[in-house]
Amino acid sequence: MSFSLKGAAKLEKSSISIVMGSKSDYETVKETVKILEEFNVQVEKKVVSAHRTPEDMVAFAKDAQSRGIQVIIAAAGGAAHLPGMIASLTDLPVIGIPIESHALHGIDSLLSIAQMPYGVPVNTMAIGVAGAKNAALAALRILALHDVELQLKLRAYRDEMAAQVRNAVLE
Amino acid sequence: MSFSLKGAAKLEKSSISIVMGSKSDYETVKETVKILEEFNVQVEKKVVSAHRTPEDMVAFAKDAQSRGIQVIIAAAGGAAHLPGMIASLTDLPVIGIPIESHALHGIDSLLSIAQMPYGVPVNTMAIGVAGAKNAALAALRILALHDVELQLKLRAYRDEMAAQVRNAVLE
Amino acid sequence: MSFSLKGAAKLEKSSISIVMGSKSDYETVKETVKILEEFNVQVEKKVVSAHRTPEDMVAFAKDAQSRGIQVIIAAAGGAAHLPGMIASLTDLPVIGIPIESHALHGIDSLLSIAQMPYGVPVNTMAIGVAGAKNAALAALRILALHDVELQLKLRAYRDEMAAQVRNAVLE
Amino acid sequence: MSFSLKGAAKLEKSSISIVMGSKSDYETVKETVKILEEFNVQVEKKVVSAHRTPEDMVAFAKDAQSRGIQVIIAAAGGAAHLPGMIASLTDLPVIGIPIESHALHGIDSLLSIAQMPYGVPVNTMAIGVAGAKNAALAALRILALHDVELQLKLRAYRDEMAAQVRNAVLE
Amino acid sequence: MSFSLKGAAKLEKSSISIVMGSKSDYETVKETVKILEEFNVQVEKKVVSAHRTPEDMVAFAKDAQSRGIQVIIAAAGGAAHLPGMIASLTDLPVIGIPIESHALHGIDSLLSIAQMPYGVPVNTMAIGVAGAKNAALAALRILALHDVELQLKLRAYRDEMAAQVRNAVLE
Amino acid sequence: MSFSLKGAAKLEKSSISIVMGSKSDYETVKETVKILEEFNVQVEKKVVSAHRTPEDMVAFAKDAQSRGIQVIIAAAGGAAHLPGMIASLTDLPVIGIPIESHALHGIDSLLSIAQMPYGVPVNTMAIGVAGAKNAALAALRILALHDVELQLKLRAYRDEMAAQVRNAVLE
Amino acid sequence: MSFSLKGAAKLEKSSISIVMGSKSDYETVKETVKILEEFNVQVEKKVVSAHRTPEDMVAFAKDAQSRGIQVIIAAAGGAAHLPGMIASLTDLPVIGIPIESHALHGIDSLLSIAQMPYGVPVNTMAIGVAGAKNAALAALRILALHDVELQLKLRAYRDEMAAQVRNAVLE
Amino acid sequence: MSFSLKGAAKLEKSSISIVMGSKSDYETVKETVKILEEFNVQVEKKVVSAHRTPEDMVAFAKDAQSRGIQVIIAAAGGAAHLPGMIASLTDLPVIGIPIESHALHGIDSLLSIAQMPYGVPVNTMAIGVAGAKNAALAALRILALHDVELQLKLRAYRDEMAAQVRNAVLE
Repeated sequence: MSFSLKGAAKLEKSSISIVMGSKSDYETVKETVKILEEFNVQVEKKVVSAHRTPEDMVAFAKDAQSRGIQVIIAAAGGAAHLPGMIASLTDLPVIGIPIESHALHGIDSLLSIAQMPYGVPVNTMAIGVAGAKNAALAALRILALHDVELQLKLRAYRDEMAAQVRNAVLE
Repeated sequence: MSFSLKGAAKLEKSSISIVMGSKSDYETVKETVKILEEFNVQVEKKVVSAHRTPEDMVAFAKDAQSRGIQVIIAAAGGAAHLPGMIASLTDLPVIGIPIESHALHGIDSLLSIAQMPYGVPVNTMAIGVAGAKNAALAALRILALHDVELQLKLRAYRDEMAAQVRNAVLE
Repeated sequence: MSFSLKGAAKLEKSSISIVMGSKSDYETVKETVKILEEFNVQVEKKVVSAHRTPEDMVAFAKDAQSRGIQVIIAAAGGAAHLPGMIASLTDLPVIGIPIESHALHGIDSLLSIAQMPYGVPVNTMAIGVAGAKNAALAALRILALHDVELQLKLRAYRDEMAAQVRNAVLE
Repeated sequence: MSFSLKGAAKLEKSSISIVMGSKSDYETVKETVKILEEFNVQVEKKVVSAHRTPEDMVAFAKDAQSRGIQVIIAAAGGAAHLPGMIASLTDLPVIGIPIESHALHGIDSLLSIAQMPYGVPVNTMAIGVAGAKNAALAALRILALHDVELQLKLRAYRDEMAAQVRNAVLE
Repeated sequence: MSFSLKGAAKLEKSSISIVMGSKSDYETVKETVKILEEFNVQVEKKVVSAHRTPEDMVAFAKDAQSRGIQVIIAAAGGAAHLPGMIASLTDLPVIGIPIESHALHGIDSLLSIAQMPYGVPVNTMAIGVAGAKNAALAALRILALHDVELQLKLRAYRDEMAAQVRNAVLE
Repeated sequence: MSFSLKGAAKLEKSSISIVMGSKSDYETVKETVKILEEFNVQVEKKVVSAHRTPEDMVAFAKDAQSRGIQVIIAAAGGAAHLPGMIASLTDLPVIGIPIESHALHGIDSLLSIAQMPYGVPVNTMAIGVAGAKNAALAALRILALHDVELQLKLRAYRDEMAAQVRNAVLE
Repeated sequence: MSFSLKGAAKLEKSSISIVMGSKSDYETVKETVKILEEFNVQVEKKVVSAHRTPEDMVAFAKDAQSRGIQVIIAAAGGAAHLPGMIASLTDLPVIGIPIESHALHGIDSLLSIAQMPYGVPVNTMAIGVAGAKNAALAALRILALHDVELQLKLRAYRDEMAAQVRNAVLE
Repeated sequence: MSFSLKGAAKLEKSSISIVMGSKSDYETVKETVKILEEFNVQVEKKVVSAHRTPEDMVAFAKDAQSRGIQVIIAAAGGAAHLPGMIASLTDLPVIGIPIESHALHGIDSLLSIAQMPYGVPVNTMAIGVAGAKNAALAALRILALHDVELQLKLRAYRDEMAAQVRNAVLE
């Protein structure tokens, strides 16, 4: 079975793929997309569930590199298996976003993503929205290694954050 | 790809399959095997790693029912994805054993196995050896629903445990 | 004392019994019932408290098998003793649902249900609604071992979940 | 069924009963016994497992008051159901000792004993040996309410502890 | 300094004293009072803070027994020192209620109350309202040891709880 | 009652007092003493238990300022009430060292010391030996505000640490 | 680079500097400011982020002592690096406030601030508002060592708190 | 100040820099080095402490990119600030290894590294040795995006791991 990413943006060159275990995760993951779009980086996004569509996930992960994907961002909550499973099926860098789960507030998601066994690395971010935003930046840092324009943009982004801190007024 | 369980016991009738994510898990899982053998139940055992052999795992889980397996027991530690992933690929009952992990002593394993999303149930046991033993008994309770001899053995087993408690001497 | 399940559905053949420690647990447990009813499986439901009606619980658990029950689903929160106590009084498969407790959000319920000692297995589900739904599916997987129609329904259910994932639109 | 406490000390007047879920718990619980014996209080001790001998436990708890027991001390580890179950079957004060469990070091035992629902109180002690010792003292404080000699002994005990602190030499 | 409990009910015979670390704790503790009043037991209640009025607390705890108090119930949240400190200053039974704290939801309160060192027992209840209610019942069980009327009331109370469970209707 | 610190060093001028809840805590606390002695700061040390000698503790804390103490360091484990209680009885800076407890490894000690209510501050250090050492340095930073020689020594100490890091050889 | 604290109060004598990692932390930190202002102590406040303005932070921390600052209060949430980093760059006393984070409610903030390695002490307060208030009082206790007027005010403050407790009416 | 990495391997082309907060962390981090050396990737390693040499850390992080470093791996334990601080000073990808700490077994390290605020991403690995090994592989996956030989080696590495799993013998 080969993977069909219906409705995702057509890929042309360097690109990031974002998958999430459930449609409801997009409430968090849209923050990842927003930043990548600000940086004008190619991005595709899709629900691909480790548990509800395990074989789609296998096909997706195995095909990603040949489709020109350079970094995969995977978000999941609870027993969050998606990032680790994808990382086991590709040699691309995989960034995991622990979704804030209902009962345990994401500590289950964090441990399920971060505590990977030797051999299969997942680049784990913080729980929730902060992690979703940082997933975009972590991916951009990787792409920027070979993209001077992105380097400049990341630098400008950091400068802008610093400026906001410096200009903060406390009242 | 179809699944080859090299070296596992040849299956004839009702049977339980035990998989574990790493060879070192067998230190715990052998307690499961020991009980099942005491009950004279057919059992196969094998290392099948969600992370290191994800496609073998898919093939194993998809073929299990047609090979006559009735219950799958899966043990894993840390970001323990094996039980949940297998449960996503079969409709057989799947019993998960959280291996006691090094740093976090199995709380990561427990959450990674128990906190499954809606749609894919894993029957989670206790962390470590107690869970490994109970995985055998949980599987036997399922088989016993249609096996009167097993029912009698389970009853005798419970009676024997009670007798041990009653005869315990405290000094 | 023999157990009287006043008001529960009259049982005819293969059946699942659902008990919960408190009436307020039904807010969660009704999700279990809903799925079992979708599958047209016989189900009885009742508040049976380990702590407030311990002897009713003993009678219930001891009589269950002879009344034709095949799987018991037990939900409880906090120091959640109901699933484990029932499992100690029957050889039927017992599935435990950790109710999301007020202060500790169900981590107490999860540990009180999952961390059973050797000899008395409880098939523990996730905390809260996801666990309640999966309890139904875990029970159905057991019944389906000897019910081809249920096997087909479970397969269709999984296919339907996969279709929903594939058709999810992110906006 | 009425309860037979084979081998326990014959009871004459005010008395404390100590039960534990497993023989191995006695390694901890013997510290409880030691203190009660120092105070010359009548004490019986016995393994009574909620999970392996649930009906013995019911009989024990229901008979305790009429046998002249005034306080029940119950020790258990992991999914520690014994103290809570006994408290549901008697109106005597029940003191719970959370045994230090293997994987989770007793946090599971503590939550399973302390997080009792409304209606069934368990007087929970600290995890492990400190809790075992304090269980004895907590029971003695109850008995001392109507035993002036015990009051004097408890006072002397506290004075002795204070003296040890005051005389401690740090080198 | 001797303790003046301004505004508390005048004590005549057997009685329970309830103290709490902060006025805001009374939101929880009023559930304790309500049950004790239902049982017509003498009860006094007062804010006595270990941290803000440490010397009042010392005076209160030291005088309690001579004022005819039989059981002290102490509620506190966060670094909840009140129950343990009182227990160090009296030989009366002390029951601790862990108030549900803001950030950590009472797990800090529970550990600060339950994890007492050897020598100074605190009878720890569940976090929050369930614990507040059970504190009343735990105190009543102690008083009932020498009060047949209370024994009958406690028995009736348990019967009433059981009846409520048996009559629960699930819809 | 006025406080007698038998055997402690006679105080002459600016000084630090170190108390601990149990003699066994000195295994950790001696690291605090060692650093203070290296800095030639006056230091007294003593076991003063919140739970076993509560009134000694009150006297100690109330007298400390008038005895010329400038900073109090208090170490305790489990339900670690000592630092918070002392802080409630003096206006001196109080530094708390959470001793690594047996079962819960000091997380109980940390929460019991850090989670103080509004009004009574405790300067909480890390669990165990690192915290014991840092307690000395935290106290020295306070004294150094009005002691130029100490400022120079602290600066030299930091430089020495940096030098050790820079010279570390990895093999 | 030397540090410019635009808009902060001009410093004249003894003074406290309050920094926080994010503007949103001020919701909590304003409680610190409020108390210091009640005590008429000089205070400057500023957003200085360890992560977004790391070099400003270095300059701030290195210059603080020469600018006449005596105590630094630093608040941060999540991976709360600000207090520890500042403490590594100055020998002034540093007080850390763990902000209540979104997903994990500040347990991450608490551990990131409290668990400092040997050599770099941070005086850690409670999570959230209680900690913010106590940070002010902890700083005042340090300043008061050489300021008799502050000593009197702190004593009056404690007396006022005690009076509030004594006058609390429970209804 | 510009950064001098005394004794580190001279860098020629694509390279990975490994820093750790303490010499003792090398016991874990040597596993990272070992894998990178197996892959013949340029690697420099050095103790650079956020807390003991904060300015060296700043210089190191700011110079890294211009020295030809492509990925920084940073290991730290407890209040593990090193990875996050470095990530705040460079736009290179930063991979964090949570060292297993003494008291809390690395859960503090994990949270201090993973729970970074928005804007400064750290690619967090598992606690301890598994994380140390995966840090190497995560870095290699990044380098391999533009290094076909590395891609082939990573693929061979995964195949070798799978072969080991397939050949595991359970006895």
